[in-house]
Amino acid sequence: MPTSPPRFAPRGDHDAIETGTDFAPKFDADGLIVAIAADATTGEVLMVAHMNEEALARTIATRSAWFFSRSRKKLWRKGEESGNTLSVTEIRVDCDQDAILLKVDIAGDAVACHQGYRSCFYRTVPVGAEAKPSLKLSFDREMRRIASGKKD
Amino acid sequence: MPTSPPRFAPRGDHDAIETGTDFAPKFDADGLIVAIAADATTGEVLMVAHMNEEALARTIATRSAWFFSRSRKKLWRKGEESGNTLSVTEIRVDCDQDAILLKVDIAGDAVACHQGYRSCFYRTVPVGAEAKPSLKLSFDREMRRIASGKKD
Repeated sequence: MPTSPPRFAPRGDHDAIETGTDFAPKFDADGLIVAIAADATTGEVLMVAHMNEEALARTIATRSAWFFSRSRKKLWRKGEESGNTLSVTEIRVDCDQDAILLKVDIAGDAVACHQGYRSCFYRTVPVGAEAKPSLKLSFDREMRRIASGKKD
Repeated sequence: MPTSPPRFAPRGDHDAIETGTDFAPKFDADGLIVAIAADATTGEVLMVAHMNEEALARTIATRSAWFFSRSRKKLWRKGEESGNTLSVTEIRVDCDQDAILLKVDIAGDAVACHQGYRSCFYRTVPVGAEAKPSLKLSFDREMRRIASGKKD
């Protein structure tokens, strides 16, 4: 397999990674990095997915969010099927450069989740009690289901 | 080793996981799930870390954020050393239940990142150009460094 030229800086020492300006994202053993998409206007967390090097490079170059699907094992441009593409206004990286934060505007009907909600985080977990299998999630009643039958 | 009683519901079928009310978080091969902490007031993403079953159970029960450090291989109560504990006002789970979102209030000097910034995402990645090793990160000038020498 031909080797492609490197697209990111090599991982330097701890200080360089955390306090420097080289972009040296850390991909895990599977070649993936976690990426969070948050609404550019409200800051609301919309979804969490993974990127490989190619997805991150495409997202940087095209300003449209690309991910790598672990279940389908393929690159995936968010919204390709549903029309709910994510237009990236800003990309941030965290201190140790093992997580990516995208600020995005959602195209289409503003649905980031394939379940038809604005955000994938449409259910809450009860807090303040012992964790046990009978705990029940609650649906966020203010987050109505806008669409159904979406594929991505 | 004695087996502890289960603390979460078993993973059901796809529909049950995504549209039901059983809390059946998916831990990866290392027994971890990704957890995002966002400011309860502003919605700003502050940090990303991992939880094992015990960290998630403790967070639910105590309303204080616990994580599992992959580098130190131990449970870790955020703010234990720095005083910047995260008081959890809400916990959410995403559609396929493989990511946790915490809404938090930060105690102490409101610094979530061990580098002394409000958020770990204090640097931006340039967008709209080809990804190459010479890309340089920019520091968010509005996110001033509040503290230094913090340990967690």
